[in-house]
Amino acid sequence: MEAEFVQWLRQRLPTPARLLLGIGDDAAVLSLRNPDGCVVTTDLLCDGVHFRLESTRPQQIGRKALAVNLSDLAAMASVPEAAFISLLLPRAAEPSLAQQVYEGLIALAEAYQVTIAGGDTNTWEGPLVINVTLLGSLSARGPLRRGGAQVGDAILVTGQLGGSLSGHHLTFQPRVREALLLHANYDLHAGMDISDGLALDLSRLLQESGAGAVIETPRIPIAPAAQAMSRSSGRSPLQHALSDGEDFELLITSSAAEADRLLHDQPLSIPITRIGTVVARRGQWQVDAQGHQTPLPASGYLH
Amino acid sequence: MEAEFVQWLRQRLPTPARLLLGIGDDAAVLSLRNPDGCVVTTDLLCDGVHFRLESTRPQQIGRKALAVNLSDLAAMASVPEAAFISLLLPRAAEPSLAQQVYEGLIALAEAYQVTIAGGDTNTWEGPLVINVTLLGSLSARGPLRRGGAQVGDAILVTGQLGGSLSGHHLTFQPRVREALLLHANYDLHAGMDISDGLALDLSRLLQESGAGAVIETPRIPIAPAAQAMSRSSGRSPLQHALSDGEDFELLITSSAAEADRLLHDQPLSIPITRIGTVVARRGQWQVDAQGHQTPLPASGYLH
Repeated sequence: MEAEFVQWLRQRLPTPARLLLGIGDDAAVLSLRNPDGCVVTTDLLCDGVHFRLESTRPQQIGRKALAVNLSDLAAMASVPEAAFISLLLPRAAEPSLAQQVYEGLIALAEAYQVTIAGGDTNTWEGPLVINVTLLGSLSARGPLRRGGAQVGDAILVTGQLGGSLSGHHLTFQPRVREALLLHANYDLHAGMDISDGLALDLSRLLQESGAGAVIETPRIPIAPAAQAMSRSSGRSPLQHALSDGEDFELLITSSAAEADRLLHDQPLSIPITRIGTVVARRGQWQVDAQGHQTPLPASGYLH
Repeated sequence: MEAEFVQWLRQRLPTPARLLLGIGDDAAVLSLRNPDGCVVTTDLLCDGVHFRLESTRPQQIGRKALAVNLSDLAAMASVPEAAFISLLLPRAAEPSLAQQVYEGLIALAEAYQVTIAGGDTNTWEGPLVINVTLLGSLSARGPLRRGGAQVGDAILVTGQLGGSLSGHHLTFQPRVREALLLHANYDLHAGMDISDGLALDLSRLLQESGAGAVIETPRIPIAPAAQAMSRSSGRSPLQHALSDGEDFELLITSSAAEADRLLHDQPLSIPITRIGTVVARRGQWQVDAQGHQTPLPASGYLH
């Protein structure tokens, strides 16, 4: 990393108390909130797959790189603490690209009280690549896992699904506060974030839990963007909601009674909706408005 | 990441006690050895800059990606614990590429008792990219920093320098055990690893310490590979040793008296050599065999 850029970063980034040693040494030293449970996730985004540099502001790319990692910690109902950023810059890019990407990262980091604690920046002949590793701490209630769903559980989702590509995949709010609030106040059995589409991610939750599910498709909250996209895509709004991916909403299960309480409370500023039930028989099915039950393919967005 | 590859990884990787929750959920949960000091480093390697896929075994690429991070923790005299791997695979590559890269990673991880605790794998149209984030813990003596050098300190290096590109940059042993042993038994003032060349990395250590240095060039331990390379490169063996980079040896300072004790003991299986002295005047100089002193340019390998 060139000295001027490191210098800019050191001046631009705050140095909170938990950062015992920050940018400028060979590694960062952190004091974590809950040392017994250090939660770590990492996600790599690259031009042409997760964003298009030619049509996206670099600030939005930086924002997204951190946001997808925040969504992973939300999926665990954990508290984000510190991020490490690796940037691989196209040699032909404008010199300010790295700073612009970082500005998007920094703004979201501040909103979620995340410390940007270190990184690595390189230049090459290839396209833009950004990797973020995010560290956090377990909440008092421990991790929200994929594998805890029980037969009879209600299946719930936050927000609305589908059509993310028309903008939501760059502007979404990771459900960190929502997950922490739900996990603290309700007895959730299982949870994850919907990153590759409801149908595919549900299959992963069921796989870990050793169970099946029946989804009542008329209950699925479909985003207006999925409706709009459907007009030109040749796919139904429901299909978009099931498999577009990059919704970054929460998929959770709890006992039916606890779900009733949660749905009655509606404790978030976004809706929570019950969309189905966990069943003993392995596999997943969809039931339409007429009560017809068919298999629900685990289709989604595979990078 | 495709399900089969995740499945392979889960079976291939051990699940030690410190990994409370591993691959298969949205994030990993770790119990760290020394929670008050979580040491973190991240390094990204890409085809054409840090390795050439066409002429390097994928296992060696995986090994190097972890080794450079281990060298960063050695630089802090810290104990490596867990690694997170992001892979970006060329779509045209053979299907086994990811597994081959991981085999190299896993072998080195086992040798250094590092847990591979999570990752992200994607495919794209570009070249191979690998990012490793490595977590560790502070030793009882705290971090070995770049900024602690004092006027009058002896400047020491482990091993031999130069000519790394002829093989050493793929096969080097990160000086983790060496750094821990030295830091535990001697009063070191400052330290870092030599990744971009002695001359450039020394300037960084001096910058952080607010001091200067005089290097006695005849004392610099020059690797046989630097001698060999010099025969065709048009550069002297000394120039190779000063600025080739990727030596991944330790550069440390201590009081002159402590250095004498250390040099007398020679406690490592590799040599430690005194190459110079920290001075008050900012800048760095080289003194040759005839006693001529000239500025030592901070040249090295800048990615």
